Amino acid sequence: MTNSAYDTLLEHLKTTAALEQIGGILMWDQEVMMPRKGNAQRAEQNAALEATIHARRTDPRLPDWFDSIDEDSLDMAGKANLREAKRAYERNTKIPAELATELARATSAAQMVWADARANDDFAAFAPTLENILDLRRQEAACLANGGDLYDALLNDYEPDAKSETLAALLGSLRPTLTDLRGRIAEKPPAPRITQPFPADVQMRVARRLADAFGYDWEAGRLDFSTHPFSSGNNQDSRITTRVNPDNVFDCFYSTIHEVGHSRYEQNMPLELARTPAGQYASMGVHESQSRMLENQIGRSRAFTEWMFGVMQEEMGDFGLTTPEDLYRAVNRVEAGYIRTEADEVHYNLHILMRFELESAMIRGDLQVADLEGVWNETFERDFGVAVDKPSNGVLQDVHWSVGLFGYFPTYSLGNIYAGELFATMQQDIPSLGEYFRKGETGEAMAWLKANVHDKAHLKAPEDIIADAVGHKPTAAPLAAYLEAKFSDLYDL
Amino acid sequence: MTNSAYDTLLEHLKTTAALEQIGGILMWDQEVMMPRKGNAQRAEQNAALEATIHARRTDPRLPDWFDSIDEDSLDMAGKANLREAKRAYERNTKIPAELATELARATSAAQMVWADARANDDFAAFAPTLENILDLRRQEAACLANGGDLYDALLNDYEPDAKSETLAALLGSLRPTLTDLRGRIAEKPPAPRITQPFPADVQMRVARRLADAFGYDWEAGRLDFSTHPFSSGNNQDSRITTRVNPDNVFDCFYSTIHEVGHSRYEQNMPLELARTPAGQYASMGVHESQSRMLENQIGRSRAFTEWMFGVMQEEMGDFGLTTPEDLYRAVNRVEAGYIRTEADEVHYNLHILMRFELESAMIRGDLQVADLEGVWNETFERDFGVAVDKPSNGVLQDVHWSVGLFGYFPTYSLGNIYAGELFATMQQDIPSLGEYFRKGETGEAMAWLKANVHDKAHLKAPEDIIADAVGHKPTAAPLAAYLEAKFSDLYDL
Repeated sequence: MTNSAYDTLLEHLKTTAALEQIGGILMWDQEVMMPRKGNAQRAEQNAALEATIHARRTDPRLPDWFDSIDEDSLDMAGKANLREAKRAYERNTKIPAELATELARATSAAQMVWADARANDDFAAFAPTLENILDLRRQEAACLANGGDLYDALLNDYEPDAKSETLAALLGSLRPTLTDLRGRIAEKPPAPRITQPFPADVQMRVARRLADAFGYDWEAGRLDFSTHPFSSGNNQDSRITTRVNPDNVFDCFYSTIHEVGHSRYEQNMPLELARTPAGQYASMGVHESQSRMLENQIGRSRAFTEWMFGVMQEEMGDFGLTTPEDLYRAVNRVEAGYIRTEADEVHYNLHILMRFELESAMIRGDLQVADLEGVWNETFERDFGVAVDKPSNGVLQDVHWSVGLFGYFPTYSLGNIYAGELFATMQQDIPSLGEYFRKGETGEAMAWLKANVHDKAHLKAPEDIIADAVGHKPTAAPLAAYLEAKFSDLYDL
Repeated sequence: MTNSAYDTLLEHLKTTAALEQIGGILMWDQEVMMPRKGNAQRAEQNAALEATIHARRTDPRLPDWFDSIDEDSLDMAGKANLREAKRAYERNTKIPAELATELARATSAAQMVWADARANDDFAAFAPTLENILDLRRQEAACLANGGDLYDALLNDYEPDAKSETLAALLGSLRPTLTDLRGRIAEKPPAPRITQPFPADVQMRVARRLADAFGYDWEAGRLDFSTHPFSSGNNQDSRITTRVNPDNVFDCFYSTIHEVGHSRYEQNMPLELARTPAGQYASMGVHESQSRMLENQIGRSRAFTEWMFGVMQEEMGDFGLTTPEDLYRAVNRVEAGYIRTEADEVHYNLHILMRFELESAMIRGDLQVADLEGVWNETFERDFGVAVDKPSNGVLQDVHWSVGLFGYFPTYSLGNIYAGELFATMQQDIPSLGEYFRKGETGEAMAWLKANVHDKAHLKAPEDIIADAVGHKPTAAPLAAYLEAKFSDLYDL
């Protein structure tokens, strides 16, 4: 039996992926470049492209090709491509067209309702809209779940093969460490901070040197501004954005490093697998592990900030901190804050845990939208020791639920857990890692990530890729140990 | 009989046009934003999009819809849409899908090869790529020509209904005026020039004020840099690019005005006809008439440069010319130069005549790529009286052939001829035009262009739109008279 059916399938998938990449370019353009009045026209363009892609994803020839393929004759990439293609086809054909249309319409309209409600600190104004979106996503989950867990059905769009039960245990095991750390740090004197403002061009000179330090390939990407930093694109065209807050240079610096972490993963992905399912990122959790490790385990390490101190002196002159150790303490300043995206390493996963618990309860029907604000505020005060002062600092702060993103939040913490595992093993494999970081050299670390994660793309299930890299089934223990050690030292606990 | 077939057809055309607009965004991105290594991936994206668009353009349901439509019941736009849809369908069904895909792939990849060859002044490095593209375009022309002229078959993509024989006569009629003018001017003292260099930011401040003067809508467009200035996009997202040459501020200023002329046409196009055939530009010649009129008949007029002199003083300080009349003479300086895009009004059409002759000979098989550089250099020396010093000043200067644009060049001169016709009539209709220009006010002129050209979109054949606007079949006489009068006065001939 020849495998011409496989070749036909692969060509079909690669063309579809090329169209999906175009969608990514349009999204980037819309966020970074598009003039204001172009919005209506862009909506028509997106709809036309989306319809084209949907027709290709649900092409009735796909199951025929699946049936004709001699799976045993396929290599590892071929098997992965077939597996992922089947998974995607099944997912895409289970959702009735009317539901998909209604979801697209509702989530697009909801974003503005959410933004207004947030601006007015009025959760009640958003609640009916959220109820509708939640209802539609629960219907979608029911189509996908085959009688299984509704939340898992949504989670698996972002984290294939993951089970929320396992995730809950994994993330939940962090809570005692984090709340304990938070409590002990709160009694210590605060870390220093930079109080001086710095203009955009000065911040961007440092940001570009930070991107350089991680080997960001400027000929395969670019760095621009957007309201919310993001990375987009694939392989040899992987772009990043950052933002500049004159009063907080670290917002720009660590957003840049974070997005560089995402983009280096994409830039390193095997070119020979480009636009095939096996050649994509393994999962959102694995993606996030790359950005968080560069941002935190490396970028916020004592060794790296020692080098960064010199760079900042060169580019910014006297910036108000006089020793590398002060900079190290400043970039690791722990502070109970309301906002997830501004959270330090200690508080960040507490933010995620709460959202994970709330959204999975909502999807399963165990928590009603009417009760959400109250439960949010109770949980926050319990976990953070501070009462929420207003909805824009609480339940209304994130865009995710308004655009229907349920099942996405836990991948952030999973990324942190994976980063903890990978970094612990990397440190064992490269004993002089700190010596390199002290000189701003990340070549050894990036080569390790490339060999152990980037090169693996989506050839295996995400958890298996991490397990192969670290030699065991991943747990939260290395992350907990890293945080405990780092912050005990920093805050003299 | 209902016209539901027409409604179905129109929806199909509008979705196709939205995908074509996406192609425009990708092209803009490639020229202005894309990182260098993104080229290969972009070629795949372009090919996937092109295949999708080609399938829609050749959809077998199209002839059924055509047959079911009650044409008599359609309004003017409906009739134009049906006419253009039929023309496009006929054109597109003649090209095999593989050829269309291969052309998209090859031209996308060729552009970077051309840019590198130009940077290295190495025509041989580009020749094999050009041979491939020429071969593909000749194959395409053979599919389209039905045994007729190969070159006309390509020309009609840019100038519907035009015949190269007629064009050759129209353009050729200019040659005596141009060579005569050039000869007489060569014996006169040269016009003044600006010798001082100016940095990019200073030049761009002036460029933005020039765009403002012509009412460019910044919320429906943007201005960036590219190697070769261009305009792209439609309606509420019509973007332009320019370039900065520190030693020649007029390159930046007049490229900007030129592209603004294109973009104002697009920005003014009737929104209710957006993404329909009737709502597009009439032809490249008409498009070019808008850019050339703003650039030359208005932008290089004595009245407009009087206002521009004040703007330049405000933004650039002392720039070396002390009177408005000196600026008027400087922007109309006549000089035999190598570069088409820098050519004065006297030499410009001589550049086009040469390219028109060379490319029609290549398409007809009368000139080989191997001989192109030599023939270019010979022809140039004959027509301009100067020897080409290097390929970047000669055969490698234009992007057109690298992206497969054969049949496009003559539309530049047709645009000049149309601009000559339109401006002569506009002057009769608005006697105090010069008074407005002297204050940098183009509102009356732009309103005239909107009413007589932009609002007409592609509701009629291009030549008929110009004929309606000027009251007769267009000829080259007004352009020749304008050039003769202007340069006789300027050079005291």
